[in-house]
Amino acid sequence: MNPMSSSLLTDLYQLTMLKSYLDLGMRGTAVFEFFVRKIPHNRGFMLAAGLEQVLDYLENLRLTNDEVTWLAESQRFPNSFIDELAHMRFTGDVHAMPEGTVFFPDEPILRVTAPLPQAQWIESRLINILHYQSLVATKAARCVLAAPGKLLVDFGLRRAHGAEAGMFAARASYLAGFTGTSNVLAAPEYGIPIFGTMAHSYIQAHATELEAFEHFAQSDPNNTILLIDTYDTEAAAEKCVALARRLKEQGIYIKGVRLDSGDLYEHSRKVRAILDAGGLHDVTIFSSGGIDEFVMHDLLARGAPIDGFGVGTHLVTSNDAPYFDCAYKLQEYAGVARRKRSEGKATWPGRKQVYRRYDVKGTMIGDVLTLESDHQPGDGLTLPYMRAGKRIAPPDSLASIRERAKSNLNALPPTLQTLEAAPPYPVKVAPPLRALADEIDRRAK
Amino acid sequence: MNPMSSSLLTDLYQLTMLKSYLDLGMRGTAVFEFFVRKIPHNRGFMLAAGLEQVLDYLENLRLTNDEVTWLAESQRFPNSFIDELAHMRFTGDVHAMPEGTVFFPDEPILRVTAPLPQAQWIESRLINILHYQSLVATKAARCVLAAPGKLLVDFGLRRAHGAEAGMFAARASYLAGFTGTSNVLAAPEYGIPIFGTMAHSYIQAHATELEAFEHFAQSDPNNTILLIDTYDTEAAAEKCVALARRLKEQGIYIKGVRLDSGDLYEHSRKVRAILDAGGLHDVTIFSSGGIDEFVMHDLLARGAPIDGFGVGTHLVTSNDAPYFDCAYKLQEYAGVARRKRSEGKATWPGRKQVYRRYDVKGTMIGDVLTLESDHQPGDGLTLPYMRAGKRIAPPDSLASIRERAKSNLNALPPTLQTLEAAPPYPVKVAPPLRALADEIDRRAK
Repeated sequence: MNPMSSSLLTDLYQLTMLKSYLDLGMRGTAVFEFFVRKIPHNRGFMLAAGLEQVLDYLENLRLTNDEVTWLAESQRFPNSFIDELAHMRFTGDVHAMPEGTVFFPDEPILRVTAPLPQAQWIESRLINILHYQSLVATKAARCVLAAPGKLLVDFGLRRAHGAEAGMFAARASYLAGFTGTSNVLAAPEYGIPIFGTMAHSYIQAHATELEAFEHFAQSDPNNTILLIDTYDTEAAAEKCVALARRLKEQGIYIKGVRLDSGDLYEHSRKVRAILDAGGLHDVTIFSSGGIDEFVMHDLLARGAPIDGFGVGTHLVTSNDAPYFDCAYKLQEYAGVARRKRSEGKATWPGRKQVYRRYDVKGTMIGDVLTLESDHQPGDGLTLPYMRAGKRIAPPDSLASIRERAKSNLNALPPTLQTLEAAPPYPVKVAPPLRALADEIDRRAK
Repeated sequence: MNPMSSSLLTDLYQLTMLKSYLDLGMRGTAVFEFFVRKIPHNRGFMLAAGLEQVLDYLENLRLTNDEVTWLAESQRFPNSFIDELAHMRFTGDVHAMPEGTVFFPDEPILRVTAPLPQAQWIESRLINILHYQSLVATKAARCVLAAPGKLLVDFGLRRAHGAEAGMFAARASYLAGFTGTSNVLAAPEYGIPIFGTMAHSYIQAHATELEAFEHFAQSDPNNTILLIDTYDTEAAAEKCVALARRLKEQGIYIKGVRLDSGDLYEHSRKVRAILDAGGLHDVTIFSSGGIDEFVMHDLLARGAPIDGFGVGTHLVTSNDAPYFDCAYKLQEYAGVARRKRSEGKATWPGRKQVYRRYDVKGTMIGDVLTLESDHQPGDGLTLPYMRAGKRIAPPDSLASIRERAKSNLNALPPTLQTLEAAPPYPVKVAPPLRALADEIDRRAK
């Protein structure tokens, strides 16, 4: 059973509830929405990602024969239920904000309209996909804003939480504007450009650093980026200058150097000076090691001559905000709007739409959250993606999602394009939605 | 290409270096060790996990035909290299601390001894597996220490970073002492007990909360745990008391109630009083929603009558320490010990062993990090697991790993069994290892 495609990758209570719904004949249409309740500290906006993988999951929702056999052998559920589950497919509708859209708390980025048992089954994996990709896309977007025009590469595979996290992080950071990833598999899977330099082990396996540099240049002459911090960074930069003359005779040019430790500001300035004095003006400086948006912003604000960054651990773990407080909640069942009223976790009921308005320059000036049946000025952000269990259009290309993300980030209010704390972006709840929430509360009393 | 089994799930530079090693005939034996450089804030020890999945990965390292085809089509590498890579298998040795062993910074928990090209290829995925499972096992161990004797269930699938993170978190938390997980797939895959209750959507989909409770009890009579915080927690507890009398006539007993929001201390005390007053002394209180080791410790220290906890987001993201500063470093090549000397990232060279000593009560009193060729008092923690690419014994059962973790946690010094900051556990570096490091530094000058 492959966890990435298994329909048993769900919480047990989904199956328990599903059985109960079938027992009770509760097969009416349910409307669930996915949204983030509160924006984390250090975030002024979020970026939607993961929709494509959710649609794939829904189109392929089904138990394999092995899974059906296991369910029967585990004796937790009656055979009649297992039979019905084995034949169940997702036959619902999906509306969503396109990937690469900026969003804010309480704004649904995905809505499922489906028979209640199906809509319940898919909850765990749907959140699992949308939450992580949006988390990384948001962190990546902050990096892109902090280092405009720089080469940004996802270096996070090793510290990502398992294989799929490594893949999702490559995808989510690329769609948010990263240049590419170090993860080889992201190239055949997603068509993302891949980048790489060399590791300290390569230097250490050689008798001398200079020998390592020369061997590497000869082996990878079109992408010679030399790692210069294994022993003494500035001494290594001097070696590059000397080596460059010799390599030139072989028709090989050093493309760049990489710094991975120490004071990156000081080292980058000294290394730039050494390279320039040696005539190596075209050799770029690439930096890695503990990089995040704050580090990049600080280095660049102080004028560090760094041309690109590898962003790893802090990107893929979103370390300063390691999760979004998100939920997938029932908003309507059998034609009746529903509302959870738990302390601190109350939800806005009904099928919703988000309208966004812009000023004349194209800058976002405010959103309105309202019922789908209402109309408000601005652009409706939620669009239909799936009807009766089938996609209604081919998947968006990753390139087009990346373009959308770029436009969205450009349209952010200037205060949200910085890393400073800013006043929250205005999201108003329209009167018809407030009225519906009040009506449900009154009905409950 | 399935990322969880693909040998292209690696960083590009591994392949670039691999090619260069083959070009240069550098096929000598390399020794790499995986260790954590610094222990994060809020952690006094770490718990090793993930070895089994690393061994699986190494035994199955090979390119598929599709992957070979893609590599050829991508034209990044010459065909001679791709041919050799297509035939490459892992033929090395692995020594490791058994899973469930407590470890500290600088102590290698895994050593690879293999031809340099192979040892390089595997770096990214090896770290990807060991880092995350050890991160979660460590967080889970802290939860186990904070809530001794309580039912602890991993609820993290939805906020885990993708499918494999959900699986790894279920495994790592169970081996560290959790009772089980909500993730269904963890049962067929790992044999982990699965647990579940009901969601708010189930309540909301019914006309009344009481009807929902009754329907659920009838549908799942052997595991009736009712979620009571959807509208008004204490009112719901009263409904449980009334319902219990009616259900008793049908031979159904309410097993527990779940609290998921609000002030868990206040609600648990009030609910306990209501249940007890209604004669429901055997009905347990299970709690979820923002739980971590600090919350559990605080609730239990204040006497909250809570019998079990669902720990989700904070467990699977290890939110207060979202990564370990870990590395897989070349310590020896072609019979010569190596040392990385980058600022703040220097490593201890050579093939190492960790010796651990205990007092008469069996409490750990100190570790010594030394060369494998040295001997020190105490138990050597690193054992052989793989020789020439093959496991030398069947996998440890998860039950036996769980027992080992339990013994290890019991043997921790009392100061490390609390959540308070404690003096660091003593790890000494033995003279032969210091001498080797000095010798390498001298040789370099």
